[in-house]
Amino acid sequence: MYAYLDNAATTKMSEAAKQAMLPIFDEIYGNPSSLHRYGQESSAVLQNARERIAACINADPKEIFFTSGGSEADNQAIYSCCKHGEKKGKKHIISTQIEHHAVLHYLHALEAEGFRVTLLPVDETGTIHISDLEAALTDDTCLVTIMMANNEIGTIQPIAEAAQLCRARKIPFHTDAVQAVGHVPVDVRALGVDMLSLAGHKFHGPKGVGALYCRRGMPLHSLLIGGAQERGRRAGTENLPAIVGMAAALEEAITELPETAARITGYRDQLIDGLAKIERSMLNGGRENRLPGNVSFCFEGLEGEALLLLLDARGIAASSGSACTSGSLEPSHVLLALGRPHEIAHGSLRLSLSRYTTQEEINHTLAMVPPVVDYLREISPVWEKIIADEIKGGN
Amino acid sequence: MYAYLDNAATTKMSEAAKQAMLPIFDEIYGNPSSLHRYGQESSAVLQNARERIAACINADPKEIFFTSGGSEADNQAIYSCCKHGEKKGKKHIISTQIEHHAVLHYLHALEAEGFRVTLLPVDETGTIHISDLEAALTDDTCLVTIMMANNEIGTIQPIAEAAQLCRARKIPFHTDAVQAVGHVPVDVRALGVDMLSLAGHKFHGPKGVGALYCRRGMPLHSLLIGGAQERGRRAGTENLPAIVGMAAALEEAITELPETAARITGYRDQLIDGLAKIERSMLNGGRENRLPGNVSFCFEGLEGEALLLLLDARGIAASSGSACTSGSLEPSHVLLALGRPHEIAHGSLRLSLSRYTTQEEINHTLAMVPPVVDYLREISPVWEKIIADEIKGGN
Repeated sequence: MYAYLDNAATTKMSEAAKQAMLPIFDEIYGNPSSLHRYGQESSAVLQNARERIAACINADPKEIFFTSGGSEADNQAIYSCCKHGEKKGKKHIISTQIEHHAVLHYLHALEAEGFRVTLLPVDETGTIHISDLEAALTDDTCLVTIMMANNEIGTIQPIAEAAQLCRARKIPFHTDAVQAVGHVPVDVRALGVDMLSLAGHKFHGPKGVGALYCRRGMPLHSLLIGGAQERGRRAGTENLPAIVGMAAALEEAITELPETAARITGYRDQLIDGLAKIERSMLNGGRENRLPGNVSFCFEGLEGEALLLLLDARGIAASSGSACTSGSLEPSHVLLALGRPHEIAHGSLRLSLSRYTTQEEINHTLAMVPPVVDYLREISPVWEKIIADEIKGGN
Repeated sequence: MYAYLDNAATTKMSEAAKQAMLPIFDEIYGNPSSLHRYGQESSAVLQNARERIAACINADPKEIFFTSGGSEADNQAIYSCCKHGEKKGKKHIISTQIEHHAVLHYLHALEAEGFRVTLLPVDETGTIHISDLEAALTDDTCLVTIMMANNEIGTIQPIAEAAQLCRARKIPFHTDAVQAVGHVPVDVRALGVDMLSLAGHKFHGPKGVGALYCRRGMPLHSLLIGGAQERGRRAGTENLPAIVGMAAALEEAITELPETAARITGYRDQLIDGLAKIERSMLNGGRENRLPGNVSFCFEGLEGEALLLLLDARGIAASSGSACTSGSLEPSHVLLALGRPHEIAHGSLRLSLSRYTTQEEINHTLAMVPPVVDYLREISPVWEKIIADEIKGGN
């Protein structure tokens, strides 16, 4: 038994996505910009994929711009809004303390170029308060970017309310929906967002491809400059096999979403209920407004990396937080934003499920995690001290 | 019979590349940044691909940075050198008039940010003169970027000489080798370049993946910002299947290069000899220092787009120049740089071969192009005028 519970890092590609890609590799290999039949056939397939992806999020095909993934889509959205804002003398950006690094690190880089960045705090459930956003908006605000669902703790933000507030003030609103698309319903019109990022490999599509939704009428500047692909907004020969694979994967994910979400939520709650019984464990994020497939805990008195390695040896692929920061000695900025002390944030475990997750994997995980936590605490001087303090304090 | 002679736009993926990718889709789908066995297995496969690609161009694996393609690699090389130059107050860039748009358009964008750009001219063979480069170098030059082989006319530039000149003056030298890698021998040490771009889909590898070689010791700034992938130089989950496919394709291309180059050069010369017999035809670029698979002609008195459409109908996929600018009414900047007048530059034809090109395709092309050129001229008022002038002039 080996349970792959690191689907927030990346997912196994679906058979439907792979089958959609194979004929593109073998036959429809023309450059969509070419005039001959190979090019025109590719161009038609590209347009079809664009229409299908647009339909999945209730966008117009002309509002979909393909990228190499979620990070590029996030970078481009921010770059574009800031370039536009700068022209009008507006250099203030609002985001949150718990964004993905593709947003946070980009914003840090912009600070060096004279932009001012306000990062909204989150409450103990990992949720922003709309009143904080309202208070942060200024006449100089050129962009508000708030992630739809958090990659570490699965919290779903009140995007529709935030977007509505921004639209009323004509401030561009972007959401990094990389963890949300394919997992919860995403309707760009209902949400009222101006820009939205998604990535194929988070919903059983291929790696190396993503998309930026950009509402018609919003200016969009190229981050990658060169050829006139994507109507002049993103240079480089279109990655047609991956785009077609992403379209197939997204359609499949959305068709199966109601059934999958119900089943996965059940598994998630079994894991949360089971792990909550472990002494001095803390669920990160609330039980409400949480991705169906996300389980995140902190365990006092142990190191997350050691936990991951022992779980791996016992047949469970898990993560401490974001895959993008694995190996870093810094504790997760998301867990710190929740108010977890450094030493507790270090003892984190993220289990992220997918529609391929089985009851057997959940049972296996529920059987394995508690004894591994016990074992690590037995050999932990930190845990020894926690217990000693507890006895001393008479608790 | 349908001859695919648009391999400079994109190539059919090789069976070896596809077979290398399939197990990555199905089994080795972990995120290389993850600590568990799925992640570590992916990480090992990524390292292996990096070593193989490095070996193909005589680089060190640590000098290879994966990107989403050639355009991104070009953009990142330029961005990085200019960011570094700007810190030292150096804001002058040297390039050529015939670069790909991923270089030229990026340089135009930098001009708006206060950079000064010198574009070297080319002679009638499409070749720069080293003396022009030498004369253009200044104390403020922060980057020289010269393509190794031109995408439209196949000219191979004297990169080793140009790089040597720059290294002697400690000026960073980048070459866009997207059309060269896999087609002619490329050895980064022998060339003496500091940075070099390549793209998988130009040598029968997958689309959506490329690499930037960056010599050890050269500063490299991230263009895409976020996670710490590619040792902090390129954010975004690694596109492992495509990277592995690119490694397989490049090894195959390089193993077969001597045999392929000899055969393709023979086909190329048959096409050049045959098309040169057409009245008022002109070979673009010289016969020496030319990519094995590139044939480029201008035919007076006709429109290139009409020629492409008729050739397509007769079973030949060709191009007028760069796929990235198809549909544009502007004549090719490369042909204009050669000194072709606008009306002649409009009548261009590029045939680009690959190792899958057959003698039958060459025969078919040699049989089809001359009558199609004749037909288009018969219905062309421009041609009528050329002939009338010729008779009047007594030529």
